[in-house]
Amino acid sequence: MKALSLAEALARIDGMPDSDVLRTRFLKALALSAHARAGGKLRTLPSVARMEPEWLGVWYTPGVSAVSTAVRDDPETSRTLTGRGATVAVVSDSTRVLGDGDCTPPGGMGVMEGKAMLMSWLGGLNAVPLCADTRDAAGVPDPGRLVDFVKAVSPSFGAVNLEDISQPNCYTVLERLQAEGSIPVWHDDAQGTACVVLAGLMNALELAGKTLDAVRIVLLGSGAAGSATARLLIRAGVDPGMISLHNSRGSLSERRQDYRGEGFGWHRELCRITNRQGFDGFEDAVKGADVLIAASGPGLVKHHHVKSMADRAIVFACANPVPEIYPDEALDAGAVVVGTGRSDLPNQVNNCFGFPGILKGVLLSGAGAISDGMAIAAAGAVAAEGRRSGLDPRRIMPDVDDPGVHASVASAVAVKAAEEGLTKAEADPDEIYRRAFEDITAVRSAHEALLEAGLLADFPREEIGDILRSVTAGG
Amino acid sequence: MKALSLAEALARIDGMPDSDVLRTRFLKALALSAHARAGGKLRTLPSVARMEPEWLGVWYTPGVSAVSTAVRDDPETSRTLTGRGATVAVVSDSTRVLGDGDCTPPGGMGVMEGKAMLMSWLGGLNAVPLCADTRDAAGVPDPGRLVDFVKAVSPSFGAVNLEDISQPNCYTVLERLQAEGSIPVWHDDAQGTACVVLAGLMNALELAGKTLDAVRIVLLGSGAAGSATARLLIRAGVDPGMISLHNSRGSLSERRQDYRGEGFGWHRELCRITNRQGFDGFEDAVKGADVLIAASGPGLVKHHHVKSMADRAIVFACANPVPEIYPDEALDAGAVVVGTGRSDLPNQVNNCFGFPGILKGVLLSGAGAISDGMAIAAAGAVAAEGRRSGLDPRRIMPDVDDPGVHASVASAVAVKAAEEGLTKAEADPDEIYRRAFEDITAVRSAHEALLEAGLLADFPREEIGDILRSVTAGG
Repeated sequence: MKALSLAEALARIDGMPDSDVLRTRFLKALALSAHARAGGKLRTLPSVARMEPEWLGVWYTPGVSAVSTAVRDDPETSRTLTGRGATVAVVSDSTRVLGDGDCTPPGGMGVMEGKAMLMSWLGGLNAVPLCADTRDAAGVPDPGRLVDFVKAVSPSFGAVNLEDISQPNCYTVLERLQAEGSIPVWHDDAQGTACVVLAGLMNALELAGKTLDAVRIVLLGSGAAGSATARLLIRAGVDPGMISLHNSRGSLSERRQDYRGEGFGWHRELCRITNRQGFDGFEDAVKGADVLIAASGPGLVKHHHVKSMADRAIVFACANPVPEIYPDEALDAGAVVVGTGRSDLPNQVNNCFGFPGILKGVLLSGAGAISDGMAIAAAGAVAAEGRRSGLDPRRIMPDVDDPGVHASVASAVAVKAAEEGLTKAEADPDEIYRRAFEDITAVRSAHEALLEAGLLADFPREEIGDILRSVTAGG
Repeated sequence: MKALSLAEALARIDGMPDSDVLRTRFLKALALSAHARAGGKLRTLPSVARMEPEWLGVWYTPGVSAVSTAVRDDPETSRTLTGRGATVAVVSDSTRVLGDGDCTPPGGMGVMEGKAMLMSWLGGLNAVPLCADTRDAAGVPDPGRLVDFVKAVSPSFGAVNLEDISQPNCYTVLERLQAEGSIPVWHDDAQGTACVVLAGLMNALELAGKTLDAVRIVLLGSGAAGSATARLLIRAGVDPGMISLHNSRGSLSERRQDYRGEGFGWHRELCRITNRQGFDGFEDAVKGADVLIAASGPGLVKHHHVKSMADRAIVFACANPVPEIYPDEALDAGAVVVGTGRSDLPNQVNNCFGFPGILKGVLLSGAGAISDGMAIAAAGAVAAEGRRSGLDPRRIMPDVDDPGVHASVASAVAVKAAEEGLTKAEADPDEIYRRAFEDITAVRSAHEALLEAGLLADFPREEIGDILRSVTAGG
């Protein structure tokens, strides 16, 4: 097969039967080959102009001694005298890596590197992927060891992004680090998804002519994403009684006995405060609901479920890569706005709208924590950017590659942090926006400069064609 | 004062009284200002060419899933499919930061960042500075916690460079990680200094017309650097009985009672096997010695000490920034070759000759450990590069900024690792040299491209002038 760009190859797949299955198979095969060629997706480079031998006496001994003693005497200075204040650790124990479950500690590196790359590309941040082996002597993932690990590494970073940790450990680790840790912590699978779902919902409601305080919301799936989304919706003003959560073991209510263990405190609370109407099962609850937010599994939402919802219903089907229901089918069943987690379908409700700007805002403002209020402010900024670029049932989110979106999020987050007393100083929204925008565009410019200097090897188009051929022949 | 380059400012200081004190004071003041402007010395950037939205499906979900499962099924693939195989962790607990002692955990960041920057600049490596808070509940540095930390973070890195850890913890941590860890570990303060001292000594002996197996060597200082140097000298063929070590508490011998605790096993061994002539005190031992290697403190070696040494004596005075004796004085007292740790004096015996190439060779060869044999091979390569560029009593080391020096070290280390059975495959010395050279020059080219694109802010020359004025006015 002749040479193809990736866009061309994907377009060809779109015209084939079983294109969804083929597309994923093709992207995985290409990813293996492209990662092997790249040998990692990040490069660390000196970020200072002067590297002449005499300057090593400034950047290293004897000059750097003044930095060591300044930080020793006032730890806060480490945020400005070293890269700490501009660097995020992307930490995972690799126990629930995307859809692949426990991949052993090094198995999460490809994903965490990808996340760190997005932090750089979309947020103008430095980011370091850290997959930690924090299993106990018997080989069982140990949340206490993961907490100790993050605490130990905290002096080197401005904030921590937790990722792909199995539940209930992810809850325990986040709660303990929020209470005991020394730097802000963000759990993107939970808080990140919740934030972006809220942003999408704000704009979908606008299109549907409804408001947050007068809708009934059904969540299918009550894992990290679902339970955090319920939390953020409640903090954003939704009546808890008007939310109900459902998973494979039934509906969350005071009858549930399976959330007794450590880490499930918030789930117990959800059982207590949600589902005022006492729905027993998803089938029952979805009837007449205004909003369905699914973060569960492929194909779990059927045509008749959506058909049974209220007029002008909103459906977010976030399972990835195969959503709970495809947009065409949900729209056919009467939904007015449908979102998924996929970049190749309309209305991608993707964490990438949130974490880069949120962490940028946290670092630029020096906030000591990331509150639900800050996450809601971020959602509001994403939604506002979406409205600014023109709302449409097939376009509720802004352009994820637009640096202005992430700079707006950073600014909103910083302002909220200051309002809530989480920063030492006031935050000037324009100044935060400007700095975030500059840092993000600097990464783009740096990438462009390295490309032009021939320092980033392209992936050969012939090989894209070959991989497409082998995948389609095999399918 | 008018605008000055750093080189011009340093030249002015050279002409002033108390220039040594002034130079250090000036470099520290400049470092504080330059670090505040830079806000960190490293930048992480995407290292892949294609960042168009459709490629995110390759670098991130769904494509990256193939990387996660490949690594899960064969952990070795993490060295080629992710950046792990090209990335070094620079780990410290900041308890002995250069000459400044315990600087609290974040206090080491400026130094570890500098080290990581040198890994990139001289070794073409990715490097991540990690200052770890591994103090116990009472706030005391805990070597066991530091070992656990390095083990936990190991899935993310190809090798670990330990740095600036107080003794005896540094010994305990290195020994335990060498025995129990999953990736190669290098302790630069000990092994790194030893390696470079050995390289310098090889060439100094050549100039003095002496050989390693027929000299008597006195070491002043028996800390991490001194004790590791003794170890490497012995491994390289020096008769242990012809070495003696001396510190502020006297000479190492079987009479010493102060090395009983954990971590001091090698010191006990040194007490047993060195100092065959039973010297009691440095004053006594240095008389008639061929070589003096001091890693102790400023000004501790006097004119009469050197004068009492054998004909054509060699003196390495490694204390930094103020050496045990200045070269002019030692030469005046009869030494034939004098080295120091300072970049502004002849014959700098600097760790920068060793660690970049050694770690590069380890990662390129996939060696599972770093043996003394590999360190000796590295020393041999540095010495050979020095001879190749022409030996002179004022020039025993090669040019540290020459990528070929570090590529040669990488090649020698990889070949030795293969010889010793520490790699899975044979190492082709030319291929390793070529890859190391390419990676190092790629970092130079990337830096140049970023400079030309105006993305690395220069330090203003006016401020260099201002800082010089304020320091000289204050002196």
